Amino acid sequence: MRLWGGRFEGETDEAMERLGASLAADWRLYGADIRGSMAYARALHKAGMLTATEHGTINEGLETILEEFEADAFAAVPGDEDIHTAVERRLHELIGEVAGKLHTGRSRNDQVATDTRMYLSERIASFRVAVRSVQRAIVAKAGAHLDVIMPGYTHGQPAQPVLFAHWVLSYFWMLQRDVERLDELAARVSVSPLGAGALAGNPFGVDRVELARELGFAQICQNSIDAVSDRDFIVEFLSWAALLGVHLSRLAADVVLWSSAEYGFVEIDEAYSTGSSIMPQKRNPDSMELVRGKAGRLIGNLVMVLTTLKGLPTSYNRDLQEDKPPLFDSVDTLLLILPVVAGVVGTMRVRSERMRAALGDGMLATDLADYLVRKGVPFRQSHGLVGEAVRRAEAAQVSLQELSLAEYQGVSDVFGEDLYEVLSFERSVCARDVVGGTAPEAVRDQLALARGILGSRNLTIKA
Amino acid sequence: MRLWGGRFEGETDEAMERLGASLAADWRLYGADIRGSMAYARALHKAGMLTATEHGTINEGLETILEEFEADAFAAVPGDEDIHTAVERRLHELIGEVAGKLHTGRSRNDQVATDTRMYLSERIASFRVAVRSVQRAIVAKAGAHLDVIMPGYTHGQPAQPVLFAHWVLSYFWMLQRDVERLDELAARVSVSPLGAGALAGNPFGVDRVELARELGFAQICQNSIDAVSDRDFIVEFLSWAALLGVHLSRLAADVVLWSSAEYGFVEIDEAYSTGSSIMPQKRNPDSMELVRGKAGRLIGNLVMVLTTLKGLPTSYNRDLQEDKPPLFDSVDTLLLILPVVAGVVGTMRVRSERMRAALGDGMLATDLADYLVRKGVPFRQSHGLVGEAVRRAEAAQVSLQELSLAEYQGVSDVFGEDLYEVLSFERSVCARDVVGGTAPEAVRDQLALARGILGSRNLTIKA
Amino acid sequence: MRLWGGRFEGETDEAMERLGASLAADWRLYGADIRGSMAYARALHKAGMLTATEHGTINEGLETILEEFEADAFAAVPGDEDIHTAVERRLHELIGEVAGKLHTGRSRNDQVATDTRMYLSERIASFRVAVRSVQRAIVAKAGAHLDVIMPGYTHGQPAQPVLFAHWVLSYFWMLQRDVERLDELAARVSVSPLGAGALAGNPFGVDRVELARELGFAQICQNSIDAVSDRDFIVEFLSWAALLGVHLSRLAADVVLWSSAEYGFVEIDEAYSTGSSIMPQKRNPDSMELVRGKAGRLIGNLVMVLTTLKGLPTSYNRDLQEDKPPLFDSVDTLLLILPVVAGVVGTMRVRSERMRAALGDGMLATDLADYLVRKGVPFRQSHGLVGEAVRRAEAAQVSLQELSLAEYQGVSDVFGEDLYEVLSFERSVCARDVVGGTAPEAVRDQLALARGILGSRNLTIKA
Amino acid sequence: MRLWGGRFEGETDEAMERLGASLAADWRLYGADIRGSMAYARALHKAGMLTATEHGTINEGLETILEEFEADAFAAVPGDEDIHTAVERRLHELIGEVAGKLHTGRSRNDQVATDTRMYLSERIASFRVAVRSVQRAIVAKAGAHLDVIMPGYTHGQPAQPVLFAHWVLSYFWMLQRDVERLDELAARVSVSPLGAGALAGNPFGVDRVELARELGFAQICQNSIDAVSDRDFIVEFLSWAALLGVHLSRLAADVVLWSSAEYGFVEIDEAYSTGSSIMPQKRNPDSMELVRGKAGRLIGNLVMVLTTLKGLPTSYNRDLQEDKPPLFDSVDTLLLILPVVAGVVGTMRVRSERMRAALGDGMLATDLADYLVRKGVPFRQSHGLVGEAVRRAEAAQVSLQELSLAEYQGVSDVFGEDLYEVLSFERSVCARDVVGGTAPEAVRDQLALARGILGSRNLTIKA
Repeated sequence: MRLWGGRFEGETDEAMERLGASLAADWRLYGADIRGSMAYARALHKAGMLTATEHGTINEGLETILEEFEADAFAAVPGDEDIHTAVERRLHELIGEVAGKLHTGRSRNDQVATDTRMYLSERIASFRVAVRSVQRAIVAKAGAHLDVIMPGYTHGQPAQPVLFAHWVLSYFWMLQRDVERLDELAARVSVSPLGAGALAGNPFGVDRVELARELGFAQICQNSIDAVSDRDFIVEFLSWAALLGVHLSRLAADVVLWSSAEYGFVEIDEAYSTGSSIMPQKRNPDSMELVRGKAGRLIGNLVMVLTTLKGLPTSYNRDLQEDKPPLFDSVDTLLLILPVVAGVVGTMRVRSERMRAALGDGMLATDLADYLVRKGVPFRQSHGLVGEAVRRAEAAQVSLQELSLAEYQGVSDVFGEDLYEVLSFERSVCARDVVGGTAPEAVRDQLALARGILGSRNLTIKA
Repeated sequence: MRLWGGRFEGETDEAMERLGASLAADWRLYGADIRGSMAYARALHKAGMLTATEHGTINEGLETILEEFEADAFAAVPGDEDIHTAVERRLHELIGEVAGKLHTGRSRNDQVATDTRMYLSERIASFRVAVRSVQRAIVAKAGAHLDVIMPGYTHGQPAQPVLFAHWVLSYFWMLQRDVERLDELAARVSVSPLGAGALAGNPFGVDRVELARELGFAQICQNSIDAVSDRDFIVEFLSWAALLGVHLSRLAADVVLWSSAEYGFVEIDEAYSTGSSIMPQKRNPDSMELVRGKAGRLIGNLVMVLTTLKGLPTSYNRDLQEDKPPLFDSVDTLLLILPVVAGVVGTMRVRSERMRAALGDGMLATDLADYLVRKGVPFRQSHGLVGEAVRRAEAAQVSLQELSLAEYQGVSDVFGEDLYEVLSFERSVCARDVVGGTAPEAVRDQLALARGILGSRNLTIKA
Repeated sequence: MRLWGGRFEGETDEAMERLGASLAADWRLYGADIRGSMAYARALHKAGMLTATEHGTINEGLETILEEFEADAFAAVPGDEDIHTAVERRLHELIGEVAGKLHTGRSRNDQVATDTRMYLSERIASFRVAVRSVQRAIVAKAGAHLDVIMPGYTHGQPAQPVLFAHWVLSYFWMLQRDVERLDELAARVSVSPLGAGALAGNPFGVDRVELARELGFAQICQNSIDAVSDRDFIVEFLSWAALLGVHLSRLAADVVLWSSAEYGFVEIDEAYSTGSSIMPQKRNPDSMELVRGKAGRLIGNLVMVLTTLKGLPTSYNRDLQEDKPPLFDSVDTLLLILPVVAGVVGTMRVRSERMRAALGDGMLATDLADYLVRKGVPFRQSHGLVGEAVRRAEAAQVSLQELSLAEYQGVSDVFGEDLYEVLSFERSVCARDVVGGTAPEAVRDQLALARGILGSRNLTIKA
Repeated sequence: MRLWGGRFEGETDEAMERLGASLAADWRLYGADIRGSMAYARALHKAGMLTATEHGTINEGLETILEEFEADAFAAVPGDEDIHTAVERRLHELIGEVAGKLHTGRSRNDQVATDTRMYLSERIASFRVAVRSVQRAIVAKAGAHLDVIMPGYTHGQPAQPVLFAHWVLSYFWMLQRDVERLDELAARVSVSPLGAGALAGNPFGVDRVELARELGFAQICQNSIDAVSDRDFIVEFLSWAALLGVHLSRLAADVVLWSSAEYGFVEIDEAYSTGSSIMPQKRNPDSMELVRGKAGRLIGNLVMVLTTLKGLPTSYNRDLQEDKPPLFDSVDTLLLILPVVAGVVGTMRVRSERMRAALGDGMLATDLADYLVRKGVPFRQSHGLVGEAVRRAEAAQVSLQELSLAEYQGVSDVFGEDLYEVLSFERSVCARDVVGGTAPEAVRDQLALARGILGSRNLTIKA
């Protein structure tokens, strides 16, 4: 069924039909589409464009169709271009000519925008839950390993000792920003275009505000031209997804690295590992590799929509049909990876002994420089002096702890016997006792703040 | 001057020096860098790490350097790797060894993040003003042409008549979403990393909250590892810039199209046009072509940073240095194009006679279908009937107005003499009198809302 | 069936299974996978690792499976992670334990790379045909309209008259470069990784060169580590697809524009147009809008793979599984749009009278300047003089033809009566008689060259 | 000096001037621009449009300007929009009115395309050399360490032992593909647009073929409309640069990882390392981190141009000015990083003892499975049996070598005493003796092939 064939004489080319068809992609919008139609039917009734009987008939027909979809019993037929056509075609089969009254004053242009926004609003709620689950897993992990010291890295090189809990909490805050952004963009998704018609507005006096309210929208679009071509909410969502994907890819990179034989700081649970078809000994962190790789996909989806929108002339153009595949793909991708990330973090074994073993006292060189600073040496100078000590230790193939006082004093006579006291990982960690620092007290505060954000101190995450 | 050479024996390779150097890119951060150092010096003093004299000396030195930069008198020397090194080197020249105390407990990792956030916060204020200027130009243009009817297009084809003011206001709302998003992201830029040190926090008890307050930050980062590697605020800004760029590219595409000989709906002022080096008659809309083209650049800058961050291991990695060229490029690009867009919109001549001439009564076919609907014909059926009428009119090479009643009644006997009354562009426009519709009353309301948002009804834009 | 479970004790998490599963995406590789296995079985036989009987059994089993796939009768079962697992599982069902000998020395790492390259090599042949079809449609269109003059545009503004055939042939050359590039990249796709094993090579002495030859590969990979992680051929293909997509998007933009009411230069056949669900008069160029929009998708797919590969550590990583969805999507997208583009070009009606009507003699200003040049006035000066004449004509609201000789001589006394002779569109076009120019002779040569490239002068394209 | 002001009355807006100005970006094109003009002047002379004297005067003027540029003595003045305007303005100052004859029949549209292609052709030669240098460093490194065995990884987990030389050579082949592609694209860069004029061709009969030959082009564009808007060569180059950047980013990721404290397989020379401003012990692989990060930039530059071109209408549009900043940025980026990569590879210390120490005999599990295969056990079954043995060894916390025969036979009685013989890293490596495999003989062949490609067996790379 073509909704638009009146003035056409010829047939549509078959390749063109394939190109234009979007039903497979649109299918998931059926719920939003039908509920949107129900609300619109009621609005037409209120506006005097449908009698009570007509309204009742249409509503019942739509309910039947919804049930068919829910029961997986809806049968598409050739010619069902998109979800709107399919539903209207079926409605016509069920209730006859009166079905043709449903689209009074409504265009697919405002309809599809409404459907997509309803769909995405629902998904946003799921994402909030899914991201929170990852945050909960992080907080639980941090809470269960508050005393574990590990090497902190910059440039991939040992830098300064930090708490494992401090490291894992660093991801809490990335995700926290994601949640904040999600809450903000949700408001811009929840805006109703319904009643914008093809581009100029609705001529039958439907009440757009009531329509919006009924469908759960928080606001309505203020300009009908903008309403039918605005895909900002999709771009904004895809930007969000891309950045979240980047965060998860960084966590994944860390976990892949730290579950390597050489680091061995964590062990990914077997439930999130796979083996090799050829190498019997392998235990691969596939879960986190896939998470890392998916970031590319999420970024690509964003580029797709931005590029498609770039330079597009005013109002609705069919190019906009290209918004949904990347949108749906990013939605699906995130719903695939978020539970896996939560599972990996929640179940991974922290091998504190390997972390401890990886601590070398070169990582305390800054503490040694700070020691000189406290004795009055300007930091830049003390940095140089300790650098010299490091060089001597390396040359002698000894640790900083093992370097003799004489050697230290050969570098600077400010060094005293008490220098050896600062060469302690615990002491180093405790020293960074500033808000957001790695000192146990500071991390405990940080954890409390994180728990407060999650809304509960009693988290029951399997760990 | 290398800030880090103590343990090194060899020289840095020259190609490596070129690769690593970022001073040229960083230069613009000098103000933020020096003000950040002043605040940090005070914090060190309060923490007891600088005497009042030392603090005074350092502060004076920094003031001198700031003056040098402002007077364009600061001379970089070979070895000035980045803005931080350059400033510290100069401070050392000016005040000697005590300069080395400034970096007590501070790393370039927290310093550069602080500088960049301060810089961007300032730019955000400029962007707000610049976007508002474009909105003001739009509102002024709409207000000055409230009675002009033009063809509304979908798929680039005449769809339904709309008010010119309605069209131009559609861009107001795109930009309004940009302003909203800008306000939201501003809060996430205004977060202080200072005191995070290299990655583990500050061991000298500096007061991070006071530091932040002094530098105008609204919040502080809660985790030092996150603090030094978080570039979300840059990604978020670049996403914002890309979407704004897409909006402007769409406006540009419309204006380029409408200033073509064939459309002729608007005329871009000579001040924003250029000629040809070879064709004497040309008057090209270069301004808007460049605006359209720049969207590619803004999108590319976003991809750069997302891709660089993807899969990056924990904490600070030198890859992060790659954040600034795309950031600065998007900042500069927007500051180049926004005033031009405001100027073009503000000065473009609206050729209402050309718009009027482009109205064909095919655009009233929907009104004709609606006419049948009001007589009880289901919309889908009336759509088909009018389609048939359109086909007859085309075959007879007449307009809908010119098609005889007999012909109409040959299509359907519901058509009556009164059908010709609905074939009016004014009537069509007036009919869409729903919130956000193109009816003059609705557009007037929309304009009032827009003016309310801009905070003033009396705009004095040259138009 | 897990191919790798020996050392595992636990179960795989269900969310992880969903994330890891690629069978749905891989399905289309079945032919390549099975043919690859057949060739590998023979190689194992030759290397003495399979008896003739074993080889026969395996081969028959594989043939049966291939038939099942071809007959759409292959049934996947839960646990079929990917196409390789599914085939091996089924083979085991069919022939028992001996199935387990097929994977001697082969890893999924070299297997999937082999499959993907075989698959893409086949598609490349289809693309060559499909692009050639578009070129043929272009050449036919050009050949059928050799005498039509239309406005040539730069900056979207009338520039100089050109032949319609010249315009349409400009797209021939873009596509010609695409064909050249396709031929070049085909050679780099046709390289066999088979025998690279997991990453280190095959220990059973299979003959990689013969294997490659049997599977139709032109070369073999020279390094087994590179072999299993090289996805350059995919990136190269996606780059190709993106640029082809950009070419098609430009053609689409032109055709959409020129089928607008205001230009009206071409009419897209009804077979490639659609109507509106609400506006009965609409005839929308949806085909070309979709083509234009798909460019975003093709660019996004390229970004996905580049980003996923960026910074990936050595050898095979599971992230590489993310190569196939974008590859397959670009393959499918191009196979959807290329026939439509060929159809649109082949069937579109050229409205030469509208093109003629759009020619304004301002477009001849360069000819007027050239006229002065031939009389000895330096071009830069003559450009200025004609600019002045244009200005006078505009002020007087007359055409250049209508501007009086007196007016011209008021600008410069070099102007003579003969100036009016150069004000001819035909003459202007004929003057550009340089290789690649728009003069009819030059365009005829160009067309002959294009036909020569296509290999035949007798094209039977419906037009 | 505006080249186009004749018909304009007003002034250009200042913001517009800033937006339109491209001189700073174009500057580097001066050589190509002037040489192009010299060739064009000669062509005009041959076509009878310049007298010998005029030609001589113009040529001398251009030579002077070229010298000024070379001596860094060329002074831009306000109003120099771009490099073409600047040169023409200066020429006018030097030789007066006759300068205005140079642009007879030439437009900035064909001129800038010519300049850019000439510029890029020259750079391509440099890239070839620079990539070859990296390949030479790789070959030298491989040749100097032919006997070093290291762990081969898949999924970041120990997989099978490989030769270090085999690993490093894997990058040779990636770069080899880059060189092949570079040679191919070079042919498409070397195509002359000169003589295409604004878009319609040259009306003064200049000999395009001779012009092209004189400027070193291999071919000429066959369609003048295509000639002025074709930026495929830039897209193709940027695609090339992006993929090369990805290759280098992968090498960088490996080197960063392997120079970590935990791996310690290689040591980056001090000349390519930097220290920390705060941590005296640090030695950071900044060089390779920057190389890794730059991939994002190269990808972003590609996206910029693809996106800018997408949907652009026919012929020249000013949007095309946006091609040069990303082009130049990718050129500069590659010329910055390629020498550094060559240097890092050439000078890095291979710590074979650390590699050896990292070999665990779990990596020989495949060899053990192959051992069972040779005894007749189907591979899939033997994979399972060895998996079980691995599990027992892990449970007993012993290596495969240490697991008792009784234990092995508890898994399968096919295991015999000789199983321990296969548990040798040397033997494992030697077994993969297939073309492209890691066996020493195969790697030696591979190295010979690589040297053959580089054209010389006697490489004198500092290592």
